[in-house]
Amino acid sequence: MTTAVPSLAAAEALDQQDPLASRRALFDLPADVIYLDGNSLGALPKDVAARTATVVSTEWGQSLIRGWNTHDWIGMPARVGDKIGQLIGAAPGTVVCADSTSVNLFKVLAAALALRPDRRDIISQRDNFPTDLYMAQGLISLTGGDRRLRLLDDANVIPALSEDTAVLMLTEVDYRTGAKLDMVAITQAAHDVGALVIWDLAHSAGAFPVDLTRAGADFAVGCGYKYLNGGPGAPAFLYVAPAHQDDFAQPLSGWMGHASPFTFEPDYRPAVGIDRYLCGTPSVLAMSALDVGVDIALEADMGAIRAKSIALCDFFITAVEQLAPGHGLQLVSPRDGTLRGSQVSFAHSDGYPVMQALIARGVIGDFRAPNILRFGFTPLYVRFTDTWRAAETLADILATRAWDDPAFHARKSVT
Amino acid sequence: MTTAVPSLAAAEALDQQDPLASRRALFDLPADVIYLDGNSLGALPKDVAARTATVVSTEWGQSLIRGWNTHDWIGMPARVGDKIGQLIGAAPGTVVCADSTSVNLFKVLAAALALRPDRRDIISQRDNFPTDLYMAQGLISLTGGDRRLRLLDDANVIPALSEDTAVLMLTEVDYRTGAKLDMVAITQAAHDVGALVIWDLAHSAGAFPVDLTRAGADFAVGCGYKYLNGGPGAPAFLYVAPAHQDDFAQPLSGWMGHASPFTFEPDYRPAVGIDRYLCGTPSVLAMSALDVGVDIALEADMGAIRAKSIALCDFFITAVEQLAPGHGLQLVSPRDGTLRGSQVSFAHSDGYPVMQALIARGVIGDFRAPNILRFGFTPLYVRFTDTWRAAETLADILATRAWDDPAFHARKSVT
Repeated sequence: MTTAVPSLAAAEALDQQDPLASRRALFDLPADVIYLDGNSLGALPKDVAARTATVVSTEWGQSLIRGWNTHDWIGMPARVGDKIGQLIGAAPGTVVCADSTSVNLFKVLAAALALRPDRRDIISQRDNFPTDLYMAQGLISLTGGDRRLRLLDDANVIPALSEDTAVLMLTEVDYRTGAKLDMVAITQAAHDVGALVIWDLAHSAGAFPVDLTRAGADFAVGCGYKYLNGGPGAPAFLYVAPAHQDDFAQPLSGWMGHASPFTFEPDYRPAVGIDRYLCGTPSVLAMSALDVGVDIALEADMGAIRAKSIALCDFFITAVEQLAPGHGLQLVSPRDGTLRGSQVSFAHSDGYPVMQALIARGVIGDFRAPNILRFGFTPLYVRFTDTWRAAETLADILATRAWDDPAFHARKSVT
Repeated sequence: MTTAVPSLAAAEALDQQDPLASRRALFDLPADVIYLDGNSLGALPKDVAARTATVVSTEWGQSLIRGWNTHDWIGMPARVGDKIGQLIGAAPGTVVCADSTSVNLFKVLAAALALRPDRRDIISQRDNFPTDLYMAQGLISLTGGDRRLRLLDDANVIPALSEDTAVLMLTEVDYRTGAKLDMVAITQAAHDVGALVIWDLAHSAGAFPVDLTRAGADFAVGCGYKYLNGGPGAPAFLYVAPAHQDDFAQPLSGWMGHASPFTFEPDYRPAVGIDRYLCGTPSVLAMSALDVGVDIALEADMGAIRAKSIALCDFFITAVEQLAPGHGLQLVSPRDGTLRGSQVSFAHSDGYPVMQALIARGVIGDFRAPNILRFGFTPLYVRFTDTWRAAETLADILATRAWDDPAFHARKSVT
């Protein structure tokens, strides 16, 4: 699959050659929409409807409390976690599905800091997704001492590493620009100074091949509702390298992480292994929906997903630049597909109303402050023809200034 | 409704007079089961099937990312929280639905400790539900200093209060015995020494009237999957008294608790009011199921629920004592209904196999280590005739020693 000179005919030809074309039928997509926001909320896998109906009516309704044993609800965090592990190069027993990305980040950051008690700095990206920074700030507020969070531009991260660095906490793909970091090289650089590394895989898991084991990553967290298609607010996941699992009892020490939850002892004893990273009772309904999305990702070839993702993004960039020159769009994503995640972002001074005008015409991307039009490309269900039409629509909106309507300037609560 | 001499005829008469009798039809219960474990996992409200199907297929499937605005998913934690607030005497804007009970306890305990920086002790019950104790231990492990968790028997809690007490952290209803504390008197006693109080309402919310405002409670947490019938692992809730809300930024400071989540600032600024107690992205699917259960509780008269609850429990105690004397059962719940939650517990030296034998005959309660047979009575769907039959079945199992079968001794992973 190579990038052609963009045209509708070229797009149709690429769709015909697409080895993943059949995957789209696994999703339930509105007929009138071109969905380029799977990096914010993945589309609905068709099988979720039947699965959640079964979980509700049969598992919960008929088995009631017995479901924890008979349907092995109790094993779901590890079972779904191990499946996600296959997508991110993590061995069985190193990933659990639980809680939110924010809560999971708190757990692994607390563990990482405890493993580097004499080092002061947490280094992260100034443009990291803010909840990661907020959780680090919250943790520091509790632990006190002279721990500090240093926020740097991507380019300054490696030069800043030193023997003061306890933890390097990075999101592999920048949520605004889509720029993708070199996980192997950065992890190695951090290890060279004795620091530990936490990777946030929110925009990685299910989007392209990840190999935490090969990179030697210490910890990772990630999101269930983007490229894993788990539904709005789906449970998140976390990874802990085998070498670190039994070194420390993470402080969100709820009963599901206890060595023996059902003996109801008054003192916490952490479970051996990854289970100690569980906390409270998980939502069976939410995790069951995610499980369906994860299964679809597992059945696909991650190499084919990456190849199509790069081709879709390249096609979109080229099409937009060909169709909409001179309208103030500025590509902020890397042009080199190997340096990108699975999204394309353009800056535009009127980015907010431009995106609202696009959404009004059925092309759904999203806006990220201050000025970014963000388009996610999910190879499982986005076609080249969608990509072409999205570029055409964007070009038309810019050429006609269709975005310059007061209705498109009114801010919504969620952007 | 008064307690009659137990018999099937008496039970039938009580069911006929029951003002809540029509509520049972709102639930989808297996035909062959008498369900006395709603205090562990509430039964399925029939409307959950349609609601979750709509959330999956219409809201997620068709609205996709737009659902956060068009279906006001973003407002759900506050909206469902306010509904729960009506059940527990909490004003609008003082409750949010989020995360797990364990995670929520961590948030409010961190806040309470921050408000009493110079006091050493967290006092709780030795028999508190362990996850609350584990979370307190985890928090202390982070904050260091000389903070300590003192675990006492219920009777010793008030005498132990002193000016060293930072926080009194209690579950209103003991999960083993069903004993119910006097929230008003205990809160007052804690305030008299300047301590703050956290109430865990896991076995209270939806089970009987609670009035946090009248009691002057400082903080509370509770569970969505017991008497609120929200499904396995449903989201939990927390309450913060208005006077404390803006005093402190709780440390699980995820983006949903930020003053402006969608401006993506690198520094955390807590939202004004209860919203700062939110953390990560909530599961829309899980919270929608809970919303259905909460609506059913709201439509019922909580006074009628309490009256029936006491009558059911009294009936069960009397029936068991009449039908099964001399088989080693010992009532561990208070005999006075006003001192009980909505459950009845008996100790028995072979409690585990006895409960397994009951479950095998379709009478579902549960076992709590070391020796407790626990029976929850949910007035919305449990009938007096169910209660009579459960007592008959228990009596027969004990009289025939039907529990003394190796199959009933084999331990399950979840008890």
